Amino acid sequence: QKKIDLSILTKPQRGIEFIGKDSLFSLRLQFRMQNRAAMLTRSDTDLSAETYEFRVRRVRLKMEGFVYSPKLTYKLQLAFSRGDMDWDMTQMSQVNTSVNIVRDAVISYEPWKNVKFSFGQTKLPGNRQRVISSGDQQFADRSIVNATFTIDRDFGFFGAYKHKYFAILGSLTSGEGRNSSQSNSGLSYTGRVEVLPFGSFTDKNDYQEGDLEREQKPKLSIGASYNFNDDAVRAGGQLGRDLFVKTDMSTLSLDLLFKYKGFALYTEFMQRNCSNPITYTSDSLSLQPVYAGNGFLQQVSYCFKSNWEIALRYAEITPFSSIYNNSAFPSINLKKHQEFQLGVTKYIYGHRVKVQGNILYQLVDDLKARTNAGKFGAIFQIELGI
Amino acid sequence: QKKIDLSILTKPQRGIEFIGKDSLFSLRLQFRMQNRAAMLTRSDTDLSAETYEFRVRRVRLKMEGFVYSPKLTYKLQLAFSRGDMDWDMTQMSQVNTSVNIVRDAVISYEPWKNVKFSFGQTKLPGNRQRVISSGDQQFADRSIVNATFTIDRDFGFFGAYKHKYFAILGSLTSGEGRNSSQSNSGLSYTGRVEVLPFGSFTDKNDYQEGDLEREQKPKLSIGASYNFNDDAVRAGGQLGRDLFVKTDMSTLSLDLLFKYKGFALYTEFMQRNCSNPITYTSDSLSLQPVYAGNGFLQQVSYCFKSNWEIALRYAEITPFSSIYNNSAFPSINLKKHQEFQLGVTKYIYGHRVKVQGNILYQLVDDLKARTNAGKFGAIFQIELGI
Amino acid sequence: QKKIDLSILTKPQRGIEFIGKDSLFSLRLQFRMQNRAAMLTRSDTDLSAETYEFRVRRVRLKMEGFVYSPKLTYKLQLAFSRGDMDWDMTQMSQVNTSVNIVRDAVISYEPWKNVKFSFGQTKLPGNRQRVISSGDQQFADRSIVNATFTIDRDFGFFGAYKHKYFAILGSLTSGEGRNSSQSNSGLSYTGRVEVLPFGSFTDKNDYQEGDLEREQKPKLSIGASYNFNDDAVRAGGQLGRDLFVKTDMSTLSLDLLFKYKGFALYTEFMQRNCSNPITYTSDSLSLQPVYAGNGFLQQVSYCFKSNWEIALRYAEITPFSSIYNNSAFPSINLKKHQEFQLGVTKYIYGHRVKVQGNILYQLVDDLKARTNAGKFGAIFQIELGI
Repeated sequence: QKKIDLSILTKPQRGIEFIGKDSLFSLRLQFRMQNRAAMLTRSDTDLSAETYEFRVRRVRLKMEGFVYSPKLTYKLQLAFSRGDMDWDMTQMSQVNTSVNIVRDAVISYEPWKNVKFSFGQTKLPGNRQRVISSGDQQFADRSIVNATFTIDRDFGFFGAYKHKYFAILGSLTSGEGRNSSQSNSGLSYTGRVEVLPFGSFTDKNDYQEGDLEREQKPKLSIGASYNFNDDAVRAGGQLGRDLFVKTDMSTLSLDLLFKYKGFALYTEFMQRNCSNPITYTSDSLSLQPVYAGNGFLQQVSYCFKSNWEIALRYAEITPFSSIYNNSAFPSINLKKHQEFQLGVTKYIYGHRVKVQGNILYQLVDDLKARTNAGKFGAIFQIELGI
Repeated sequence: QKKIDLSILTKPQRGIEFIGKDSLFSLRLQFRMQNRAAMLTRSDTDLSAETYEFRVRRVRLKMEGFVYSPKLTYKLQLAFSRGDMDWDMTQMSQVNTSVNIVRDAVISYEPWKNVKFSFGQTKLPGNRQRVISSGDQQFADRSIVNATFTIDRDFGFFGAYKHKYFAILGSLTSGEGRNSSQSNSGLSYTGRVEVLPFGSFTDKNDYQEGDLEREQKPKLSIGASYNFNDDAVRAGGQLGRDLFVKTDMSTLSLDLLFKYKGFALYTEFMQRNCSNPITYTSDSLSLQPVYAGNGFLQQVSYCFKSNWEIALRYAEITPFSSIYNNSAFPSINLKKHQEFQLGVTKYIYGHRVKVQGNILYQLVDDLKARTNAGKFGAIFQIELGI
Repeated sequence: QKKIDLSILTKPQRGIEFIGKDSLFSLRLQFRMQNRAAMLTRSDTDLSAETYEFRVRRVRLKMEGFVYSPKLTYKLQLAFSRGDMDWDMTQMSQVNTSVNIVRDAVISYEPWKNVKFSFGQTKLPGNRQRVISSGDQQFADRSIVNATFTIDRDFGFFGAYKHKYFAILGSLTSGEGRNSSQSNSGLSYTGRVEVLPFGSFTDKNDYQEGDLEREQKPKLSIGASYNFNDDAVRAGGQLGRDLFVKTDMSTLSLDLLFKYKGFALYTEFMQRNCSNPITYTSDSLSLQPVYAGNGFLQQVSYCFKSNWEIALRYAEITPFSSIYNNSAFPSINLKKHQEFQLGVTKYIYGHRVKVQGNILYQLVDDLKARTNAGKFGAIFQIELGI
């Protein structure tokens, strides 16, 4: 076997790429880290720090490329920081029983331009903010709407057709989320439609936050996703604490993204339905509810030519009355949450190197008792990657 | 210190290789992933799905090369998928207390051609199917014989002498398996002999399944391994659940591999002996048996010139009567298992990219009650790597 | 976007370096592994093995470089071996609840030569032996003084000013150690001063053990560090088992390093103070003490021109009487430990490839009962990296 030279290249903000001169494979390597110092006050009147969050929020290693043929591609993404492995011993889960380093491990085949079939683990075609990489966000974290209702990642079969003016995506997956060792006979079904009335965004700009590309013509994308998770065993379907009884769950997400000359507007509505949102052990001593309800998110931002950006967010999640005012389960009282956030970001090297400062106000409403409590918070984050 | 150029090369199916022009080190980088969708029926009459296995079975990163001198080599292999880290919180083991990412981390010195001394963690010279990489198998998984009786990997000292017509391998290791933090005073001793009456196989073809090399002359390898694990603390010696009392264990493995023009035949016999195969807590309330017994595996395959392969497998494991009909421990009744499997594989880029479909039938015999129960299963797997 | 060539270079013992021709980023990749076989005798009269330590002690992957500007640098270090992830299920900690793969993830800005501001997770400017990489040590392990009193790594803000004749370092960090998900309102404050009366050492030789550089002129560095950890929740501040009550803790470290023509001398004194060193649950049934006391370490070594080195170590840790003779907590009796060690190291490729043999004698003093017990031990270790 003779040895063949490899080329090694880079595009700005796209890591290191190795390509075999025989074109039998390519590999693009990227890493990124997110370092964060944040604090939360004791209340909205006592502004002293109650807790700090001082941590490496994410460390990711990504490998993408093709093998054998440019039509046969792969994406592998690994997560190494503690808070990014979705597992914590104290939860004592029987379903989520070990750390999860693998985020994406997916093999795709693209028989024709715009058509892609994939097999493996990756993000479900759900709410857009979830699908946008955590490295391409304009706030330090996704919203509470996403945290509560996202269908996240799963393992299975995926299909996508993308056209200039619309896209159709679907998947058939395990329903138990990232890399469960075994899943029950109930699977998970997801569909998504996107309409782009003014045509494609510049270079995947519809899947990153803010408008760093400064679209020269107005661009709009409207998306709708629906997921049905048959026999879900976790409180968030693909995520969350163990349920005591398996239950069917459906999640709807509607989103709208508009960008023009540095201005970006993003709106998201989500709803989770579950026939029996409160699960319990046979002795009724332990209860685990599903957060069934509505979520609404609104973000607007403007990015100056200096690559300074100002962004505003409002988000709320509202439970259905069955999980806060249910006579059969008086102890269950899930809250309404609201979040107001102001973000200032300096993009130093696109989304690869950025410095972010966020100020936030959280309001928790007890809908049963008709009381509420607020807290202020601040986040400083630097993201660095290649 | 002046900077020196590095060369970067590849051989087909051998990843990316960096070599210093001063030849002071080399590093070959490879990765692979195995994505799997499988199902098992409720019984052999009710063919509806009881469980699914939808997961990234393996994600591996491998680095190999030399440092300082080509005689001083290393192999480092990391495993990142959840099912590949050999740890699950629900087992509550006192011995296997954390995830295991490191599969191989071994440093070797080759003073003369064919002679190799190694120090570190790697596979023991046990049954051949175990030593063959999971990336070079012809079925989606190794057999139940391997799952039950393999001596797997361990940490310690290894030696090997390889000749055209025979090989001798030996090791002295901890006996507690992969990366135990501490091991007791009883170590583990392994020896293996291989005879190759028709000479060496083409390019390590005796350590991959199937005959993709299409040997032009008949090739045969007969191997015998013996392991003695002094004071074993886990049910499988180097693997498995905690034993309640340490026990001595011996494992014998005999195997035969024949390949010729695309045809491959593999036979394996294994036996585990243990003087006291049932361990128990001092109050006798908890029992942990060792599966002492025999295993037999037979695989045959033919690989067409189009790189489509058909393979058949029969495997069985049979317990000794001491663990299913032991008057002192009437609750212990380990079963006999049989497995029939048909595999169809399309090798797209050798073993690096392949698509596998397996159909299987499992039969579990209760030797005490003289009853049995069967299940059908199907596995679809794609392996992709460089 | 046009593709740009990357250069790929190496310096001896400095891994593989990728540099974009546009100088928008660089990445230097290094790995190393430490394989160890060690034993400890039953006592100093019965020299038979009580336990063995056969394991991959460390596997590390390191990436360093700059992004956007050479003034904006990063360091990312990942740890993959089980014993190097600081987590063990059996400890059932409520604070340290998952494995820790990320050792260093830090972003630095160097506005002027010698001035560096950093944000992220890395080593605190504490005792020198801790700050010296585990890959640059002359014994297989750091001393018991470090194991007991080190302030280790933490997440937060760091600043350093380095001059030919002195250095000043400081940090403000969470106080909860590596990557805690949340930290309480008490932070951790660290300061360090170093004086180098004969000027800088050759090429960071003041931060590696032994004198492989063979300093041609005598070199001396004297350092003093002080850490105050407000509201510590772990027995070692940044490390260790959960405390039952949060407590303030201060740690002092003084060290002196001298090197000349292959000879190296290192002295370290550490002291930990804690107002209430014994914490307990509200029912007083469970106790968790802090090892408050003094530590002293002395190492001397000589490295021959053949790169064979002989080293001697004496280390001791002595508890304050409050944790071995405290009338309020008669069950708490922490011991004095002493360690004598002889090390012989052959540096094959600097610190990157070395073979180490250590012989040690451990003496444990029960200061309350006035008895002691000794054990001998031996360690064989090979380190290999690029």
